[in-house]
Amino acid sequence: MSINLLDNPHPPRSVAIVGSGAIGCYYGGRLAQHGLPVHFLMRSDYPVVKEKGLTITSCRGDFSLSPSQIQIYDNVSRMPRVDLVIVTLKTTANDQYAPLITPLLHESTAILTLQNGLGNEARLAELFGADRVLGGLAFVCCNRLGPGRIDHSAHGLIRMGEYSHHGISSRLAALGKLFNASNIQCDTIAKLDEGRWEKLVWNIPFNGLGTLLDQTTDRLIACPEGEALVRRLMVEVVAGAAGNGVHLPEGTIDHQVNRTRVMDAYQTSMQIDRRLGRPLEIEAILGEPVRQAEAAGVPVPSMRMLYELMVLGSV
Amino acid sequence: MSINLLDNPHPPRSVAIVGSGAIGCYYGGRLAQHGLPVHFLMRSDYPVVKEKGLTITSCRGDFSLSPSQIQIYDNVSRMPRVDLVIVTLKTTANDQYAPLITPLLHESTAILTLQNGLGNEARLAELFGADRVLGGLAFVCCNRLGPGRIDHSAHGLIRMGEYSHHGISSRLAALGKLFNASNIQCDTIAKLDEGRWEKLVWNIPFNGLGTLLDQTTDRLIACPEGEALVRRLMVEVVAGAAGNGVHLPEGTIDHQVNRTRVMDAYQTSMQIDRRLGRPLEIEAILGEPVRQAEAAGVPVPSMRMLYELMVLGSV
Repeated sequence: MSINLLDNPHPPRSVAIVGSGAIGCYYGGRLAQHGLPVHFLMRSDYPVVKEKGLTITSCRGDFSLSPSQIQIYDNVSRMPRVDLVIVTLKTTANDQYAPLITPLLHESTAILTLQNGLGNEARLAELFGADRVLGGLAFVCCNRLGPGRIDHSAHGLIRMGEYSHHGISSRLAALGKLFNASNIQCDTIAKLDEGRWEKLVWNIPFNGLGTLLDQTTDRLIACPEGEALVRRLMVEVVAGAAGNGVHLPEGTIDHQVNRTRVMDAYQTSMQIDRRLGRPLEIEAILGEPVRQAEAAGVPVPSMRMLYELMVLGSV
Repeated sequence: MSINLLDNPHPPRSVAIVGSGAIGCYYGGRLAQHGLPVHFLMRSDYPVVKEKGLTITSCRGDFSLSPSQIQIYDNVSRMPRVDLVIVTLKTTANDQYAPLITPLLHESTAILTLQNGLGNEARLAELFGADRVLGGLAFVCCNRLGPGRIDHSAHGLIRMGEYSHHGISSRLAALGKLFNASNIQCDTIAKLDEGRWEKLVWNIPFNGLGTLLDQTTDRLIACPEGEALVRRLMVEVVAGAAGNGVHLPEGTIDHQVNRTRVMDAYQTSMQIDRRLGRPLEIEAILGEPVRQAEAAGVPVPSMRMLYELMVLGSV
């Protein structure tokens, strides 16, 4: 690519949301509320949102967007090329990257995936070029109440980094500034891979075991057997990260266990998905970390078994 | 003990059944049908059975026992001492061995446990002396339909051996003969520990995974991930057995997988217990084998994790 996409100091002037579920609508809605042209690709909710717009209740302030304030589509071929594509698809739909994203790209379009787990940025980079790709970790509780009706009940922080580069690029800094100006709490991070693995230290045991056993986070660490198993999984995640060049801070595991202990009974998104019979993000949250750890020569037997149990449990 | 209990060539002339669930009532019923005085210790079913006796439908022939043909008790202190105590308690009630069995013993009473898993004979030996103890593996499908109403739908073989001795003692031979004469298919085996571990090769993956994932046996081996996990668990059980001096025949694992493949969709007893909210025999079927393998220096990480998941899933 002849231009250096990462050096772009200008914030995007147009945004597309690919995967307009609760998280896509919330963050896209905030950017639209800030005045940016935001183009939402929808499926089943298209007719209702096209007619009525978005209604969002939020712990950071409720807001609505009328149909004239947003752009709604049910077919990507009718959408314009944009400066920023935000990907909030479920990772189980990642085989749709090419048809859904290709039509939205101009020469310097950036792609920000806010999806869960590992492997999303790598796949986007493979398809569209590494320099386009950024990743964000969304720490947020959002639920879809109905077509065009979203509830944002807690948190909201995005930690965002470049995929192809360690450090804060001009592009990343500009994006972070735009997000914060749009009432989206946003930290830019120099090492996206570190952020991804760090989140997995929590997600693998709690999403995995919580879904497998249909137990909230508090119950998983209420008995010594459970805490031991949670910690053994965390030790393997930390080792898997180290094998991939990501050295998480001393005390990460204690910190994650301790912060879980003071949370309420918490249902992970995957546990909720399972209860509702939705597809589970097993590959992104478990499969890919297991494969990356093992590819680096790090044995992760508990992670592998948890992964296999999840696969087996959902066939 | 001054007399050698194992050399006793005389079949028992009286029997007590401790734990009169479906299996206890079925086998005890067969012995009573053969004409032996059989004393059943009951709890909630006591008043009905005392009044109406036992009604048993069986693939080997239906039969009934009137109240005059059996002896029913609701309190062990009223029961006589007997020649043979058959223990068919659920292993989760093994802390009741001492109060329930002690009153039934005379100097040469034998104790036969037909319970699942490992550790039952050892505990009985500790409490009552190793020479009294025999163990049997019951391959049988029995269900309680209601008070005093048992359905024996399939199989029925008992494989029975001495606990303290490798070989076929006179006592064991006499017992086997009595059982077969009572329309109970019975093999005497020279190595009880081998029979126990061999059964665990099947029980640990299928009871364990089947209960954890609420899946019938056919589904567990329907996908490659499932079969791989089942086989990895079986390899660990075989290794755990070897660490404890029990060398299972070459081909055991293939045999167990292949015979499962031709079975129907089968719900293990533990899966049924879980569905009905009953206590699960986790310690006998998983915990004790894990401990015995590890005590012998054999690492069994998949068995251990399955055990911990079962414990965690049932707290």
